Amino acid sequence: MTEREPSRALAHPATGAIRLEAVLHALSDPIRLAIVRDLAGTETELSCSHFELPVTKSTTTHHFRVLRESGVVRQTYRGTAKMNGLRRTDLDALFPGLLDRVLAAADAESARLAEAAGLRA
Amino acid sequence: MTEREPSRALAHPATGAIRLEAVLHALSDPIRLAIVRDLAGTETELSCSHFELPVTKSTTTHHFRVLRESGVVRQTYRGTAKMNGLRRTDLDALFPGLLDRVLAAADAESARLAEAAGLRA
Repeated sequence: MTEREPSRALAHPATGAIRLEAVLHALSDPIRLAIVRDLAGTETELSCSHFELPVTKSTTTHHFRVLRESGVVRQTYRGTAKMNGLRRTDLDALFPGLLDRVLAAADAESARLAEAAGLRA
Repeated sequence: MTEREPSRALAHPATGAIRLEAVLHALSDPIRLAIVRDLAGTETELSCSHFELPVTKSTTTHHFRVLRESGVVRQTYRGTAKMNGLRRTDLDALFPGLLDRVLAAADAESARLAEAAGLRA
């Protein structure tokens, strides 16, 4: 079940078709989790080229597709740029508090790993 | 980094070696999520054979290994039975509130899907 969209628009699951397992899978990859954390930290949409990721362009495209098809991210074309926004309202309505807990857990893990790296240095 | 354990014991990540991405990956599979929900609903450990899963024995073993190696579940031998317990204390210490939000989200999704199936029937 996907929403009807104009041509050149990208397929997204309707809110009711978003599945927890797919959302968790989308968030379980370090690169995708980093993208989601960046998007959560801004009020605006970000273009795919905004993200400086340590992977090839085609891998980047794959990660954004997983995020879009799972319902985590909404992608829209603005001219030739693909803009990305977190579907926070949809996710919060379906799974209250889940995204916030994942983001807090990611922050805590980053802080722990940075501290451990500092201790080793 | 794994804890030292006696022979016949199974390898588990130490608490500090549990990674968010691995936990989310472990929870992103419907079978594994069902196992975790069962374990969360009981105070006792459950044997692998307790779970009636719609998959082969070797697939079941695989799912339990993913849960153990990610740090979600602790597995111990009791005679010939492999017993499973949720590592709730470890997970709550590392990622406060995360497991509870995932379990609540899984409950909400199950209720929604059951209602949708009822409407179609």
